[in-house]
Amino acid sequence: MPSIESLVEAMVRGDTMSLARLISRVEKESPDAAEVLRLASPHAGKGYRIGFTGPPGSGKSTLVDQVTAVIRGRDGAPAVGIIAVDPTSPFSGGALLGDRIRMEQHYQDEGVFIRSMGTRGGHGGLPNVAQRAATLLEASGKEYVLIETVGVGQTELDVMDAADTVVVVMVPEAGDSIQTMKAGLMEIADIFVVNKSDREGADKLAQEIEASLHLGASATGWTVPVLNTEAHRGVGVQELMDAIDEHRRVSEESGELHARRERRRSAQFFKTVEERMVAALHDLLTSDGDLRALVGRIEAGEIDPYTAALDVLGGRWLSHISFSGPGGG
Amino acid sequence: MPSIESLVEAMVRGDTMSLARLISRVEKESPDAAEVLRLASPHAGKGYRIGFTGPPGSGKSTLVDQVTAVIRGRDGAPAVGIIAVDPTSPFSGGALLGDRIRMEQHYQDEGVFIRSMGTRGGHGGLPNVAQRAATLLEASGKEYVLIETVGVGQTELDVMDAADTVVVVMVPEAGDSIQTMKAGLMEIADIFVVNKSDREGADKLAQEIEASLHLGASATGWTVPVLNTEAHRGVGVQELMDAIDEHRRVSEESGELHARRERRRSAQFFKTVEERMVAALHDLLTSDGDLRALVGRIEAGEIDPYTAALDVLGGRWLSHISFSGPGGG
Repeated sequence: MPSIESLVEAMVRGDTMSLARLISRVEKESPDAAEVLRLASPHAGKGYRIGFTGPPGSGKSTLVDQVTAVIRGRDGAPAVGIIAVDPTSPFSGGALLGDRIRMEQHYQDEGVFIRSMGTRGGHGGLPNVAQRAATLLEASGKEYVLIETVGVGQTELDVMDAADTVVVVMVPEAGDSIQTMKAGLMEIADIFVVNKSDREGADKLAQEIEASLHLGASATGWTVPVLNTEAHRGVGVQELMDAIDEHRRVSEESGELHARRERRRSAQFFKTVEERMVAALHDLLTSDGDLRALVGRIEAGEIDPYTAALDVLGGRWLSHISFSGPGGG
Repeated sequence: MPSIESLVEAMVRGDTMSLARLISRVEKESPDAAEVLRLASPHAGKGYRIGFTGPPGSGKSTLVDQVTAVIRGRDGAPAVGIIAVDPTSPFSGGALLGDRIRMEQHYQDEGVFIRSMGTRGGHGGLPNVAQRAATLLEASGKEYVLIETVGVGQTELDVMDAADTVVVVMVPEAGDSIQTMKAGLMEIADIFVVNKSDREGADKLAQEIEASLHLGASATGWTVPVLNTEAHRGVGVQELMDAIDEHRRVSEESGELHARRERRRSAQFFKTVEERMVAALHDLLTSDGDLRALVGRIEAGEIDPYTAALDVLGGRWLSHISFSGPGGG
């Protein structure tokens, strides 16, 4: 088995197989994941991350496909990494289907790397895993990382924390549920897209979104645009890419991009420490007979979980925890 | 300010104001939350928890309302606690609206307590907070706890871990998205309800669900039924309650209920210890000058988050952490 160092070196040189293997390690939160990221980080940070979210069936995959084609058509054919996150599907059935469809267009394009994530992630959760996969894609030389997530729950919103520009995709049919999802989506959207804009209700939806947007003020000098697309025909895709470029420019000038990346870095630090602490706790469970017995008593209802937790936190067990794993210093 | 002990005593005697205040403390994850739960736990465990989940607009709130009316109409008028969770709405606009509508029916009924949760929860997350609020509702003497969550993301599925019987509510209009959400919902459903069953497509939806269910085998001797309801007219609600009772009976006999509650107790133990460990880490950040400086360097990109995390885990800082808070032993 090749060492972590040699895999990371190969990935940085552009080897796709090494990239895929390293993403798997990070995704499974294997003990050497932090070490992988430590080695990869110096090579990351040069990619631009664009997030796409919105309700199921809004055509996000098609839009991501079209945006990829626009980027690939630019001078120098910038490399693109795509992360498709589907938290609602533990068996990643939906995500795999997405891959298959996309493959038809980008199958033979070595400048495009696609990865689906359908599991819920380990201790750190899916948003964290997406964040780290994006770091690896950047380290492998992808100039753009597109992150797509299915659904409109909190997990999906959290995944978007990984993005520099967040595109929220809606469709006219989504009218019924817009009230429900509005608060969360309005907060994170840098650009709104009304896709399938040839359908009835598209204008009304765009107006509703505009009206909601006007309720909030922008602190960064950016006015969230509402764009119309018909992704399956490519209509409006160039305009969307222009808007993304413009948001990038404004966000760089205002310092917003810098601030987002700062927040992301410190969040990753805390998440990594948290995960290792939690993993150490779970390791202790399997190695310490007293603690195993305690969990047995908790399960049997002989002691309530909160009393037991306060007992353990009181210091009897925690001094046994070793935080350093294979990658630990 | 009354002591935790006196608040818990009052709650156990049935005082609604004390219940509301204690749920707030648990919801905000205040430092004494574990102590609140430790005192309340001996009085909990006698309520039966029914979860309702499904896509927005499927009529879950109306169904929960109707089921509440059926329970309240039983011999002895069993007390009901309702937890309405809306992870997609940080401002709890949707959840509050739900309250207002419900109030019309159960406003003057002292045997019904309703609580909305619209925030994402703290370190422990919303599923954890819902779990704990259910414990407090039980301790306050609620014989049934109904937990309703809006949406179909991973958070919503996780909230259902708190329930003894999980009812998944669908509507004919949901046909488009059923493929997307199927995997997650199929795993957790004990009972399927096709609500608004007078609408076009209801039979087709019921057949699709039945077909999907037949793909999976039941390990516990329970066959997941697919029921039709028209919640707004009360049609099928008694049959739903009968199915819930039947699932409860089968689940008690097979040991499934016992196993679920065991898992729930040990999960709460781990979650509580995890939270306190993480809280201690964050406390350390604000009190330790070296660590604050390190976070500054991480944000500035001078050191990558993973190297910094491995450094910290290497032992230089963690020995400073105090795990015991106000409720610590």
